[in-house]
Amino acid sequence: MYKSVEQWAEIADIEEKGNVWFTEYQTNDLGISFRIRAVLESKKTPFQLLTVIDTYEFGKIMLLDNAVMVSDREEFLYHEYLAHIPMSAHPAPKDILVIGGGDGGTVREILKHPSVESVKLVEIDREVVEAARKYFPDLSYGLDDSRVEILYTDGIKFVQSAKNKFDIILVDSTDPRGPAVGLFSPQFYKDAHKALKEGGILSAQTESPVLHPTIFEEIYSSLAKAFGAGNLWTYLGWTPLYPSGMWSFCFAGKNSHPLKNFDANRATQMSQITQWFNSEVHKAAFAAPNYIKDLLPEGTEQKE
Amino acid sequence: MYKSVEQWAEIADIEEKGNVWFTEYQTNDLGISFRIRAVLESKKTPFQLLTVIDTYEFGKIMLLDNAVMVSDREEFLYHEYLAHIPMSAHPAPKDILVIGGGDGGTVREILKHPSVESVKLVEIDREVVEAARKYFPDLSYGLDDSRVEILYTDGIKFVQSAKNKFDIILVDSTDPRGPAVGLFSPQFYKDAHKALKEGGILSAQTESPVLHPTIFEEIYSSLAKAFGAGNLWTYLGWTPLYPSGMWSFCFAGKNSHPLKNFDANRATQMSQITQWFNSEVHKAAFAAPNYIKDLLPEGTEQKE
Repeated sequence: MYKSVEQWAEIADIEEKGNVWFTEYQTNDLGISFRIRAVLESKKTPFQLLTVIDTYEFGKIMLLDNAVMVSDREEFLYHEYLAHIPMSAHPAPKDILVIGGGDGGTVREILKHPSVESVKLVEIDREVVEAARKYFPDLSYGLDDSRVEILYTDGIKFVQSAKNKFDIILVDSTDPRGPAVGLFSPQFYKDAHKALKEGGILSAQTESPVLHPTIFEEIYSSLAKAFGAGNLWTYLGWTPLYPSGMWSFCFAGKNSHPLKNFDANRATQMSQITQWFNSEVHKAAFAAPNYIKDLLPEGTEQKE
Repeated sequence: MYKSVEQWAEIADIEEKGNVWFTEYQTNDLGISFRIRAVLESKKTPFQLLTVIDTYEFGKIMLLDNAVMVSDREEFLYHEYLAHIPMSAHPAPKDILVIGGGDGGTVREILKHPSVESVKLVEIDREVVEAARKYFPDLSYGLDDSRVEILYTDGIKFVQSAKNKFDIILVDSTDPRGPAVGLFSPQFYKDAHKALKEGGILSAQTESPVLHPTIFEEIYSSLAKAFGAGNLWTYLGWTPLYPSGMWSFCFAGKNSHPLKNFDANRATQMSQITQWFNSEVHKAAFAAPNYIKDLLPEGTEQKE
């Protein structure tokens, strides 16, 4: 089930094999399969198995430990949801921290906001950035912007040492297993709260609520403890290549509100240079369906 | 790639086989796979191959021509989007027509609206209804309601002969291939317009805009010709088991408006007995992302 570097090498010579497919097992009982044109790279980094494949349906895809991270064709959805929603609810975001996100897609979207002065990208795995630069130039070009500093270190430790420093923190992580587990811990959320300036916002990918309701519930319970339930919202977006196609993100504010502080003018300006995001998308993402209300902690505005 | 009745029979004895999976090929280059507990039925009807499997991740799933129609676990999403959105935008929907939808899920949701007097379900394949009654009681129970009449005939022909008769027409069809092709034709949309009463609404599933933008564009171009672009909206929902997880539906009105005519009181009443739908979901579904605006015909309100 779990492909190794050696197994990837075996199927690398696609032309001789013809009809070659890769299946990501999204759970023990659910898979998504892509017909592949080429295996461009597969290597063990110090942190994970990094594979880049070229697929017929979605173009190039980066896999970490055999799970889809980004695809050429639909990466804009995830990155626009993660970046523009908190950015558009801050009056003038200047100092931004991204944890994970070594592919550069989130940074690319952040840099569209004219107030941005500094973006720190804390990526644990240097080889993710190198692969993004090599195979995903449309995602990674923002990493060369003079406002961007890349730190190859552990985001959890980095946040511990920061205080009152960032307007926006974005956690663009893998699922809560392996090196990313700590990014879903109550302690991390407390440290992130401390690292934010007044009026700051933490947004993070918070998994699929329909496929993993228990994980979703736990994440929001931990976030409520760190930020206070009254400062916590969830929002939903479409992510065709993540399990279930429905993805959630948190909006955890240090005295910020996703709709009251929403800057509609900037969102309209952004919508000229985005593929999906606009003012309507911003507001719609916070509509909480009954199923989601049930999973949110007591005291959150969306639960009422 | 395409499993026959005989191939299904071969894998039916799951216990002896152990780790058995079914893959739906959603496109030539994309698959979704389910680990299966049992094959409950697989038969050729006069119209299609009908298969019912029991899966570990989503419970029972009905397949038509090896494409997922409904699953126990997440069917509420599709059915609530298709039914409650047009129903909640009509002041008092009495006479309802459903084309396709033999599993009963759409009818179940319609019947929650107290004004409903008559529901005609026009399903071409009697065996779909029989399988739903046998394997999906939670979907099909509404079919026994005294207000419901099931007609086993061709929905395309049925609509040709109806005039000024329905408040709501819902097209709950398979993809535009096989018997369903005609349900996406300009002539069908014209006939449906004629079959609606003043103030009536046609809603139909209109495929995945991110996976099949050209099909989406064609459908809305045809709808605009029949209803006028000014009477046409699209709305989006999450459907984990349909390709891409993002699904679109049309709201084609005969002088109706999805938001101006929205009955918030009834939506609130409905939200007590739905799993997902509520007033916020209704409004959010009509938020048109940039990508969707680009695909809509000139003259539609959402394009502006």
